Amino acid sequence: MMHTSTHAATGQHLLLDLYGCDAALLSSLEQLTLLIKNAAHRANATIINSHFHHFGHQLGVTGVLLLKESHMSIHTWPEHGYAAIDIFMCGDAEVDQAKTYLLAAFKPDQHTSQKINRGLYSNVFPPVPA
Amino acid sequence: MMHTSTHAATGQHLLLDLYGCDAALLSSLEQLTLLIKNAAHRANATIINSHFHHFGHQLGVTGVLLLKESHMSIHTWPEHGYAAIDIFMCGDAEVDQAKTYLLAAFKPDQHTSQKINRGLYSNVFPPVPA
Repeated sequence: MMHTSTHAATGQHLLLDLYGCDAALLSSLEQLTLLIKNAAHRANATIINSHFHHFGHQLGVTGVLLLKESHMSIHTWPEHGYAAIDIFMCGDAEVDQAKTYLLAAFKPDQHTSQKINRGLYSNVFPPVPA
Repeated sequence: MMHTSTHAATGQHLLLDLYGCDAALLSSLEQLTLLIKNAAHRANATIINSHFHHFGHQLGVTGVLLLKESHMSIHTWPEHGYAAIDIFMCGDAEVDQAKTYLLAAFKPDQHTSQKINRGLYSNVFPPVPA
């Protein structure tokens, strides 16, 4: 849900673990930044801020997009062919569109995906009067 | 696990949902930035980058710390007294220390906490030769 609304504060948090990915891709700051931003656009999310960090030659990358709808993050371990991605989106953003795009882009040999609903109990607390 | 090592790429991802928090706290960019950074320090994590965004007067805050050990994020909905926090840490960082600190600082009426192990299957893929 958009932070600027007073709708129920619920969202979907997708944890995506990708195994057997190309090591060069997982060590490329430029490619990973592009892929994560593309995924956010596929989900119709709005990017507020982006920061990606490369730990060094042939080492991993860690990065995050702050979104109007929450965030996306990626952490990679090229030496294991492994990437941990999370996508937390509220409102009308389409988490599954981002997931589909990322699986096609990273081409993992195996992956696991867990979707967790957030903020389920927030309706027990009525909005605070302005 | 540190990105600069070649150890198994496993970590713990804690999803913390806080209900019934003080609305003024949840709309304070300064206080939330301080509390999340304090929690990272309690966990013995190393901050690489920090970005927090305030959606406006009495509205929510969304923010993230990029850590050497992965990331922490917070998204708040003051009108619901609700905060969604996630803490993803690898290696020797102590996720539970961060959680204990945050519960004491936010004093939620209710909370839910889910800890998810990440990268469990990465050991099936041996390190890529340098």
